[in-house]
Amino acid sequence: KQEEECLNGDGEALDALLSDLARVNNSRERASKLFQWLISPLPAKAFFRDTWEKKPILVQRKNPDYYKGLFSTAEFDCILRQEDIQYGVNLDVTSYTNGKRETHNPPGRALPFTVWDFYESGCSIRLLNPQAFSSTVWNVLSILQEQFGSMAGANIYLTPPGTQGFAPHYDDIEAFVVQLEGKKHWRVYNPRTEDEVLPVLSSPNFDQAEIGKPILEVVLEAGDLLYFPRGFIHQGDCLPDAHSLHITISSYQKNSWGDLLHKLIPAALDIAMEEDVEFRQGLPLDYLTYMGVQNSDKDDPRRTKFFSRIESLMKKLTNYAPVDAAVDQKARDFLHDCLPPMLTPEELASSVQGAPARWECGQVMDVGAHINTETRVRVLRAGCARLCSDGEAVHMYYTTDNSRVYHKEELKSFEIKPEHTDAIEFLIHSYPKFVTVGSLPCDAAKEKVALAELLFEKGIIHTAEPL
Amino acid sequence: KQEEECLNGDGEALDALLSDLARVNNSRERASKLFQWLISPLPAKAFFRDTWEKKPILVQRKNPDYYKGLFSTAEFDCILRQEDIQYGVNLDVTSYTNGKRETHNPPGRALPFTVWDFYESGCSIRLLNPQAFSSTVWNVLSILQEQFGSMAGANIYLTPPGTQGFAPHYDDIEAFVVQLEGKKHWRVYNPRTEDEVLPVLSSPNFDQAEIGKPILEVVLEAGDLLYFPRGFIHQGDCLPDAHSLHITISSYQKNSWGDLLHKLIPAALDIAMEEDVEFRQGLPLDYLTYMGVQNSDKDDPRRTKFFSRIESLMKKLTNYAPVDAAVDQKARDFLHDCLPPMLTPEELASSVQGAPARWECGQVMDVGAHINTETRVRVLRAGCARLCSDGEAVHMYYTTDNSRVYHKEELKSFEIKPEHTDAIEFLIHSYPKFVTVGSLPCDAAKEKVALAELLFEKGIIHTAEPL
Amino acid sequence: KQEEECLNGDGEALDALLSDLARVNNSRERASKLFQWLISPLPAKAFFRDTWEKKPILVQRKNPDYYKGLFSTAEFDCILRQEDIQYGVNLDVTSYTNGKRETHNPPGRALPFTVWDFYESGCSIRLLNPQAFSSTVWNVLSILQEQFGSMAGANIYLTPPGTQGFAPHYDDIEAFVVQLEGKKHWRVYNPRTEDEVLPVLSSPNFDQAEIGKPILEVVLEAGDLLYFPRGFIHQGDCLPDAHSLHITISSYQKNSWGDLLHKLIPAALDIAMEEDVEFRQGLPLDYLTYMGVQNSDKDDPRRTKFFSRIESLMKKLTNYAPVDAAVDQKARDFLHDCLPPMLTPEELASSVQGAPARWECGQVMDVGAHINTETRVRVLRAGCARLCSDGEAVHMYYTTDNSRVYHKEELKSFEIKPEHTDAIEFLIHSYPKFVTVGSLPCDAAKEKVALAELLFEKGIIHTAEPL
Amino acid sequence: KQEEECLNGDGEALDALLSDLARVNNSRERASKLFQWLISPLPAKAFFRDTWEKKPILVQRKNPDYYKGLFSTAEFDCILRQEDIQYGVNLDVTSYTNGKRETHNPPGRALPFTVWDFYESGCSIRLLNPQAFSSTVWNVLSILQEQFGSMAGANIYLTPPGTQGFAPHYDDIEAFVVQLEGKKHWRVYNPRTEDEVLPVLSSPNFDQAEIGKPILEVVLEAGDLLYFPRGFIHQGDCLPDAHSLHITISSYQKNSWGDLLHKLIPAALDIAMEEDVEFRQGLPLDYLTYMGVQNSDKDDPRRTKFFSRIESLMKKLTNYAPVDAAVDQKARDFLHDCLPPMLTPEELASSVQGAPARWECGQVMDVGAHINTETRVRVLRAGCARLCSDGEAVHMYYTTDNSRVYHKEELKSFEIKPEHTDAIEFLIHSYPKFVTVGSLPCDAAKEKVALAELLFEKGIIHTAEPL
Repeated sequence: KQEEECLNGDGEALDALLSDLARVNNSRERASKLFQWLISPLPAKAFFRDTWEKKPILVQRKNPDYYKGLFSTAEFDCILRQEDIQYGVNLDVTSYTNGKRETHNPPGRALPFTVWDFYESGCSIRLLNPQAFSSTVWNVLSILQEQFGSMAGANIYLTPPGTQGFAPHYDDIEAFVVQLEGKKHWRVYNPRTEDEVLPVLSSPNFDQAEIGKPILEVVLEAGDLLYFPRGFIHQGDCLPDAHSLHITISSYQKNSWGDLLHKLIPAALDIAMEEDVEFRQGLPLDYLTYMGVQNSDKDDPRRTKFFSRIESLMKKLTNYAPVDAAVDQKARDFLHDCLPPMLTPEELASSVQGAPARWECGQVMDVGAHINTETRVRVLRAGCARLCSDGEAVHMYYTTDNSRVYHKEELKSFEIKPEHTDAIEFLIHSYPKFVTVGSLPCDAAKEKVALAELLFEKGIIHTAEPL
Repeated sequence: KQEEECLNGDGEALDALLSDLARVNNSRERASKLFQWLISPLPAKAFFRDTWEKKPILVQRKNPDYYKGLFSTAEFDCILRQEDIQYGVNLDVTSYTNGKRETHNPPGRALPFTVWDFYESGCSIRLLNPQAFSSTVWNVLSILQEQFGSMAGANIYLTPPGTQGFAPHYDDIEAFVVQLEGKKHWRVYNPRTEDEVLPVLSSPNFDQAEIGKPILEVVLEAGDLLYFPRGFIHQGDCLPDAHSLHITISSYQKNSWGDLLHKLIPAALDIAMEEDVEFRQGLPLDYLTYMGVQNSDKDDPRRTKFFSRIESLMKKLTNYAPVDAAVDQKARDFLHDCLPPMLTPEELASSVQGAPARWECGQVMDVGAHINTETRVRVLRAGCARLCSDGEAVHMYYTTDNSRVYHKEELKSFEIKPEHTDAIEFLIHSYPKFVTVGSLPCDAAKEKVALAELLFEKGIIHTAEPL
Repeated sequence: KQEEECLNGDGEALDALLSDLARVNNSRERASKLFQWLISPLPAKAFFRDTWEKKPILVQRKNPDYYKGLFSTAEFDCILRQEDIQYGVNLDVTSYTNGKRETHNPPGRALPFTVWDFYESGCSIRLLNPQAFSSTVWNVLSILQEQFGSMAGANIYLTPPGTQGFAPHYDDIEAFVVQLEGKKHWRVYNPRTEDEVLPVLSSPNFDQAEIGKPILEVVLEAGDLLYFPRGFIHQGDCLPDAHSLHITISSYQKNSWGDLLHKLIPAALDIAMEEDVEFRQGLPLDYLTYMGVQNSDKDDPRRTKFFSRIESLMKKLTNYAPVDAAVDQKARDFLHDCLPPMLTPEELASSVQGAPARWECGQVMDVGAHINTETRVRVLRAGCARLCSDGEAVHMYYTTDNSRVYHKEELKSFEIKPEHTDAIEFLIHSYPKFVTVGSLPCDAAKEKVALAELLFEKGIIHTAEPL
Repeated sequence: KQEEECLNGDGEALDALLSDLARVNNSRERASKLFQWLISPLPAKAFFRDTWEKKPILVQRKNPDYYKGLFSTAEFDCILRQEDIQYGVNLDVTSYTNGKRETHNPPGRALPFTVWDFYESGCSIRLLNPQAFSSTVWNVLSILQEQFGSMAGANIYLTPPGTQGFAPHYDDIEAFVVQLEGKKHWRVYNPRTEDEVLPVLSSPNFDQAEIGKPILEVVLEAGDLLYFPRGFIHQGDCLPDAHSLHITISSYQKNSWGDLLHKLIPAALDIAMEEDVEFRQGLPLDYLTYMGVQNSDKDDPRRTKFFSRIESLMKKLTNYAPVDAAVDQKARDFLHDCLPPMLTPEELASSVQGAPARWECGQVMDVGAHINTETRVRVLRAGCARLCSDGEAVHMYYTTDNSRVYHKEELKSFEIKPEHTDAIEFLIHSYPKFVTVGSLPCDAAKEKVALAELLFEKGIIHTAEPL
């Protein structure tokens, strides 16, 4: 903490891109443009139609500087020096030699002295949660999460020449392998069975004999991209002549239809039991005598009738499914997973974080600048806040007080009075347009201003011009 | 504990009935006969078709001795003396005066000295869990639970003349009010709304103004029965000239189709996610922008498509529903709720509990009598043991080590080796016939005997003749 | 629970003794007489002066009926049948063969069928906490605890002919081995070192090679007694021709001066810190540089000064030691450990437990009999209640609501108002004399009666004549 | 975290002092010099003899720049912008108006926008744990903790003109009030009673009527110092014409002789019980009948005897007091409380934190520089590591991995093999001299180097020259 945050060296192209993106008015459009840059020249539309969740794809660019500025080993070295990187918490030391995968983390802080010693002896280094330490990675992921509507995470992998750090395995996330430095030899394999297509959980480490033949084999070079869906087995190793640094950007962990149904269906059943007496009627007196595993071989007409009653009830369940409320449950989880937005200088200047109130020359300055009905405001990002109902009360959930460290903070929210929900919805749906505080559909001017002040103090809205 | 268990006085008719029932070979038939006695002269078949879960019914017998021997205030007085009855745990002191319901439990043990003082000052006494203190109540309930396939419970209520102990309310169980002594004036009311028909939870106490007019009003006398389903509001008060003692026998708490679906549906979804890739596919990238409560007023074709995808998945869920396994989950809960069987002298003599091994004249006697392949055995009750599979292993769950105190013991079980499941199923399905140990479908005679010994030592089986 | 509590057969002599003792007016005197019977013909005074906590002693009586009626194997057999004896909780099955000590407890209830099978195959049976199952043992121990001023416990050991159930070891209690049936060969050994004299904890099992030569070797026969203090190693085995049944009565676990000091000294230090500024003064700035293990070899005058300051403060501590309050802490522990008193018929008739209020012929009888200022009362036992101060409030602690199962109930108490403490002290110190309620030193007659009623309802006092 | 750590402006004098101190070879001497600067011109020796823990003292310097550079409101404003300061965790907003003390913390992050708003409306701001945010405060406290041998903490108080933020009260620490900006009017009062001299706990807020007349009343100006011991009541308020910023440096919380005795005495009793049979002897059989609060008025010779036995045992306790081990328990608490050392550039260059191993130009550089037997090493600070024995094993406890946030990390330690304790003691006692690794009293050169490497990697030792 004693010094400036580590920088990633001269990443001029990326810096320029990010500056351009900062001027894109709508955060969703910004997310789409950044994602397009990530997979360019593949068109995003075609990618999501033909490739996403379906098959691996490779982009070879012959342009080692394409991703320059995103992250570098030099930045990593700087991070080791300046941040409290703990072995086993933020960083793993691994090796995969003669078919054996090992982890070598000692206890305590990872300082360059020991990390580089491990590296020199052939170990791979994995930096977890790099968004907590690198502003650029934070910025990129916080933009991409709006493209995915699901947490965007990342790990960084540094591998010495001629070594491999991990056994073949598959993951439970969509993976974008972005080669930053050097080269890496990759092999990708089909899911082994139908059951391992788009799997719910990651696999254990596999033996080479278990995984068949690769469907894709390539040497990734700096500036290249490799994408593969969850369930595709993969392994990467370094050629003898070059180290490798890559970042894997991931998303869509537990973001399937089934994950939504896990929220929806118990709620649907609760509602059905409240509203439909058929669900509350008693089971047959004697059902235990013909149902259950010990009776499953019995040929009993009562079994058929029982099954058909169950089927009919399950069909009716659809009528009671509170889909929007279940989506809100997923949305809340996502808001909790989100990175906080990284503000541009303009956003800083027009939000609570950069408000001009300050101590100067022995006194407080500019503390009087306040919101009035003429002030034009909007939410800071399309997805930085959301109105959800938990049955009785309506709450506003928001990401602007989240931490760069995953779940370090609780999900933040506050209750919205019934008479303010219209105003909040109006604000959210107006994005990216600014609207005057006076135009909020509340009763009194005083309430409009008070509501806007509250949202401004939480960092949820910013103003069209600095206050 | 210093003296004999309290007896209920001269209940000759009931004693005779219970002796007769002890000679009924099949415990399910026994249960049915006892239930028929309870509601006689109503025929059980018609009762379950027309009345059960549908409407209250009254049986007036003009026979004050009909239920004699089931329980009496004299037995209650004896229990207070001999058992450690604790206020608030086993017994409640209540009053309902001028529309106000109060509980008057002091701390500590309920001795006659203080209990009768409360009674004399106009308080009602409720004895909880009388089956733990009265053998007859235990016997009756342990038989009836086989009729219901659901826990049979009971409370006993003693009310002084001219008083009422409880406010009007409805319960979450089917109730059989059995008048034992004196008289009680009852009023029963319809469920107030469709939503309160067969309700999941009991109601709070109601004001008289909230409940409308009774659909049934009667003075119950000793020997009479009043049944009403869950959801029917009721209140009872004593006439000025007579006290009242009644026992309420209850069943079917949380025993509805919906309660089974609560076990079934999460399991179905887990299986669907394993077996059907459609459940594992990712949600649409942008679903959070048009779904959720804050978007519920939007008229967006993507919403229609989203709803229809959900509906289609929910319909498919039926294909994956593990009905028998879910029934086994309910069965396990029931086995845990069950009272242990109360053994007849013949059963005692032919089971581990009455095995003749003993200390006599300074030495151990009859310790050698053992099971062999010729021994004829059967399970002690139709429903005292059940084979359930929890995915991987098969376990035998049983009630014979349960306590008379609700859930005082954990649910008892042991694992059954795959090669023994056929033998166990054979035993269970053979009931009420006795089969020779030699006829069990196991490989070796030694194994047959070992298995039978294990079941005998747990009290699950007994022998055709005393060992 | 279905039948009468097990009886111990024709123990006429002991029955007569206990009846005589029931007529002894003072429970302390009763305790002393019973203890004298236990060790007779040794005179108690000499025993406590010369033997207690000092050395083993043997009483051989040539009278196999001396302890008859205390407990028998027949009673044990009856208990197995009637009580829920659980392996590992209430009963242990053990063996000691070829120097190897094993425990053979299966899970579940110990029924005669399996227990006698273990016995026949040479295992020893240890019944824990027999006072919960045998009224006579309960009676004897509840009397003896007043003699010891410390919990009196017991285990019962049944050993088949020609076997040994336990390895040589020493215990942390004073042990009275009372031979009830058959014979047992005992060997007792001196504590091995000074540190094992009157040890705080029991020993592990010893090898025969570790324990030297016995100082006492004897065959104990029915009617004999063997006493040894904690720390004396012992082992007993059965001769080939006779089984053995003995009960070991124990006391003085954690009842040493040091155990009292553990309560006293932290309290003394708290008081010293409140009252004496010398204890609150800061440590020397540099004490960590010359004190501590890493400096313990330093020859530094500051160390000498530091030690002497510590010594002086520790000496002053005596001035602040709240001895009576610490004794009360020990007393509370003892009251919690106590068995509840077992009432004689006369005591029953004159206490809340036997109060005549009852249900008879359809109504409550004798509920009006109440305490008035003329009623003569006293505490039920010298030691059944105690007034303790916890700094602010004064509480009455009492044993009459304890359970026969160790610590099954919390320690019972209630707060005593300051204006009632004199009355309570008066009552306690008047024992064994009865005093009229009117003579209690309270302000108003109404309060005297209310206080007496409270104590009567808790079972702490009884009346000179039945109410 | 996006920017450089906040600086405190042009604190040239303090910067120069700290640079000078960095060149002081011995950290204890450095601590003493810094403390001397703090209280100058008072001589430290006289201060500790006459004033410390005895009475308040005032140093008025007429030099507003004396403490310049330690902290400033401008630095505080910068911290609010750059660090995640949370209301209620790191910062409190308070007021004391018309005798009423209030706290006004909202939830969430404290940003300048809201903090300065509170300030302008007359609230005081207290920054807790400033050492976590200000390097200079960290540096100063981490040096001073070696002077005190007890944790040195700090709070910072910013008060608007004409207001008071806190009610009169006393604290449980020795307080050095260092005026940094503006002026504050202070009143200090004697402890109210003997019992409140050097109190163990802080007081509640007092009313003005409860505290008597001040013994010291003064207007503190920038550059002035006010010291007062724990127990002295104090209050400070701002004059109408100037704000106030001060830092209160504190120490000696729970660092009294009594606090040490709390560790020492239970250990002494445990040892006495092990070694001295008198402590293990049983209490008198009848002690409960004459001891305890209910018997405290009795005039019984047994009471006298009992008291004298207690007194004699307490006196003997001194013989068993493990003073050095108890000091080590206190030392471990202190090591856990300690701030980690803040390294000078020279220390950085010669320790693991500044070791030259790095990534440069696409490869690892200088990773081979290792310790050998010629390398000269010493512990980083006199008090940064300590060897303590916990009975069986010897552990090394150290502060170099502590966090600047209080107790954020567990106390760090590792076990030292018996054959290495001499080497470690030699190293610790050699400080501030450097010794060669070869001179460590271990058996083999390899072991010496391995031990030195371990200590180097933990940051406990540094080398005389950069590796």
